[in-house]
Amino acid sequence: MTLPARAQEPGTTHTIHPGTDGAGVVRRTVLPGGLRVITETMPTVRSAAFGIWAGVGSRDESPADAGASHYLEHVLFKGTERRTALQISAAMDAVGGDLNAFTAKEYTCYYARVLDSDLPLAVDVVSDMVADSLNLPEDVEAERGVILEEIHMRDDDPSDLVHDEFSLALYGDVPIGRPILGTIESINALTRDRVHGYYREHYRPPNLVVSAAGNVDHDEVVRLTQQAFAAHLTGDDRPAAPRLGGETWPGTPTVRVLDKDTEQAHIVLGGLGVARTDDRRFALGVLNAALGGGMSSRLFQEIREKRGLAYSVYSYTAQYADTGTFGVYAGCQPGKADEVLQICREEIARAAEDGLTAEELERGKGQLRGGMVLGLEDTGSRMSRIGKSELVYESLLAVDDLLARIEAVTLDDVLAVAQDVLTQPQALTVIGPFGDRDFSL
Amino acid sequence: MTLPARAQEPGTTHTIHPGTDGAGVVRRTVLPGGLRVITETMPTVRSAAFGIWAGVGSRDESPADAGASHYLEHVLFKGTERRTALQISAAMDAVGGDLNAFTAKEYTCYYARVLDSDLPLAVDVVSDMVADSLNLPEDVEAERGVILEEIHMRDDDPSDLVHDEFSLALYGDVPIGRPILGTIESINALTRDRVHGYYREHYRPPNLVVSAAGNVDHDEVVRLTQQAFAAHLTGDDRPAAPRLGGETWPGTPTVRVLDKDTEQAHIVLGGLGVARTDDRRFALGVLNAALGGGMSSRLFQEIREKRGLAYSVYSYTAQYADTGTFGVYAGCQPGKADEVLQICREEIARAAEDGLTAEELERGKGQLRGGMVLGLEDTGSRMSRIGKSELVYESLLAVDDLLARIEAVTLDDVLAVAQDVLTQPQALTVIGPFGDRDFSL
Repeated sequence: MTLPARAQEPGTTHTIHPGTDGAGVVRRTVLPGGLRVITETMPTVRSAAFGIWAGVGSRDESPADAGASHYLEHVLFKGTERRTALQISAAMDAVGGDLNAFTAKEYTCYYARVLDSDLPLAVDVVSDMVADSLNLPEDVEAERGVILEEIHMRDDDPSDLVHDEFSLALYGDVPIGRPILGTIESINALTRDRVHGYYREHYRPPNLVVSAAGNVDHDEVVRLTQQAFAAHLTGDDRPAAPRLGGETWPGTPTVRVLDKDTEQAHIVLGGLGVARTDDRRFALGVLNAALGGGMSSRLFQEIREKRGLAYSVYSYTAQYADTGTFGVYAGCQPGKADEVLQICREEIARAAEDGLTAEELERGKGQLRGGMVLGLEDTGSRMSRIGKSELVYESLLAVDDLLARIEAVTLDDVLAVAQDVLTQPQALTVIGPFGDRDFSL
Repeated sequence: MTLPARAQEPGTTHTIHPGTDGAGVVRRTVLPGGLRVITETMPTVRSAAFGIWAGVGSRDESPADAGASHYLEHVLFKGTERRTALQISAAMDAVGGDLNAFTAKEYTCYYARVLDSDLPLAVDVVSDMVADSLNLPEDVEAERGVILEEIHMRDDDPSDLVHDEFSLALYGDVPIGRPILGTIESINALTRDRVHGYYREHYRPPNLVVSAAGNVDHDEVVRLTQQAFAAHLTGDDRPAAPRLGGETWPGTPTVRVLDKDTEQAHIVLGGLGVARTDDRRFALGVLNAALGGGMSSRLFQEIREKRGLAYSVYSYTAQYADTGTFGVYAGCQPGKADEVLQICREEIARAAEDGLTAEELERGKGQLRGGMVLGLEDTGSRMSRIGKSELVYESLLAVDDLLARIEAVTLDDVLAVAQDVLTQPQALTVIGPFGDRDFSL
């Protein structure tokens, strides 16, 4: 179904999805000041997920701000005029709620999952954190150590680190390429004034989306949000438009080899994929499923099932406003890295040449379809879908429409996107005990 | 509510939980040969989780079999008379189902999560894998490499490895102390005959539990299971009784320091907890929540919130048939390991001395209560709850009863279990760049 264009006038409320089998009623309100509230009602559950999405992420950071979005995400848990850090966490622990946050390249999300009767508490706590954070100097200072430890923890897990290294190898030293966590140096250099200034600049109502799903009533969520944000809902700002993109990718993917004394070689090979709004994303999804997205995929079968060379091997895609990534990960014995890389290259080349078989096409579609429906059964994923969509898309796609788009993918669509995406210049990252050994593309 | 004693006669079916607000109808049938089928109906969801639980795990392994339970779990995906490995994975990928398995110290579980209309397929595929695995020599051989890579991957993640090392430090070189994955040596030594013999010995109907939850009909699950297991449902065996325990813990927790060139020191400190059937497990759960189970807990506040010494710090419990574990994990700068350990010891000693405050008691109860209810909203966790309970408990506790047991915990109960558990002899494991530096208890 086609959904109506979004009203942007403060004070407007409308139903943007009437609710069908398997999807709840979705309603949306724009509050004064440009704050959006979007909800999806799932009356058969007893819980609620509540989130606030900020349209800011590591992609918005200058080199001097590197890691500021994520640093700020941490500091927002440290206290407001009304609550200390302990009071924030104690309030949610007391009801067994799950309070957390995450920072991505293009957005940041704070959320709580609670029993439906605790929704008012969740709205109050999460809104308080996001709208009225004090960002006190001593709290910014204490949190610096925590973030440095988070970086060290990432560094100690090569299967995690390799993805951050790959991002640099593919995109280069531009905002989209740099690690979300920042670096030891950039985190040490960030001052309280800079973090607080970043907060004041980016956490304004037009750049925020309030999102709730579960056994929730739209009007109640709006009312609770109005209370919690009361001091901020002034002026006649309209909601911010979706992000258009960012600094251009410099176009020279590289090879990065990190010499580490690990048991496995951790490998990521890949190139540019498609943007979030690219119509080819459905065909790429099917291609990805068949190439490395499941246990029946070509890479899993060739590398793990037939040859026993890896435990973990998969392909993946990521979408951003104006670009995307397609990559393959494998962890294997260092002495088998060349063999595994060779198989990855052959399978990528074969798919770029011939696309998929009819059987793989159908299986890939079924995998996306089933995965999507099963993945939307909990309140958290529903909340994420509508909140993130509000922030990054021009309009919300109904689940039925998404399923129809998947169903419509043809063998030719897959071949076309394979011929384009899989022949992009590739970046390669390898972590392992390789001294100064070279890997080449 | 009190639930009826279990009938063990083949051919019996009864309702063991009539269904109340927040919990579905639970029914149970014993099939000929001693195979149990237990289901919980959640009519408001559109999916189903189906699992088969085997009452075998690493605790059942002699030194020569070390890792056999987990090895076998892998081999069961490799094919049957009716399906190759590719056909198994393709069948589930085609419907977007999530097919997986895990091995624990006392049980092994194979499961699929699918749309409700795909339940017959899930029952057929999972039952086929479990009941009729071929365990061909060439498949056992190919999977050896995969398992060795899984061990190497674990070795490359010190925050994972430290838990396996802690288990050895606490329990010693006995079955419950040894790693579920086995060792490079034991995996290299396991032959096809030994793996297959292990399968024939442990995967018999009396030792298996079939479990399903979601939009499922008990009679249909029973019928589908009977079809899939047809050749095996003979004889008059009764279901196996819950496990009683195992080799006695030798009683000398030790210190294990692994010198690794990591960025962080990864620390686990702890001792024996309580058994799965111990009435004190509810009080220990509340104690654990308050000491290190959430963001408002003492350890999180002291180590992360106030001092910024760690990103990841938490306490945990594990329960087994006749014993259990209470432990604390922290990852910090190697130079801060002594300070972090000192705080952990002080907080453990303080709780053992004084127990909790009334406020912490209430918050801990709320955390367990809310976490339990929220955690049982998806079909997978419902399936796990009833399947695992059938295997390891004498009877299934209703969710309402569990909530009442939590509610009944008093400050005295918590103090009593703290005085016992937190004063047990402690084991300590540290991974980090420590050369031959000693840590002591």
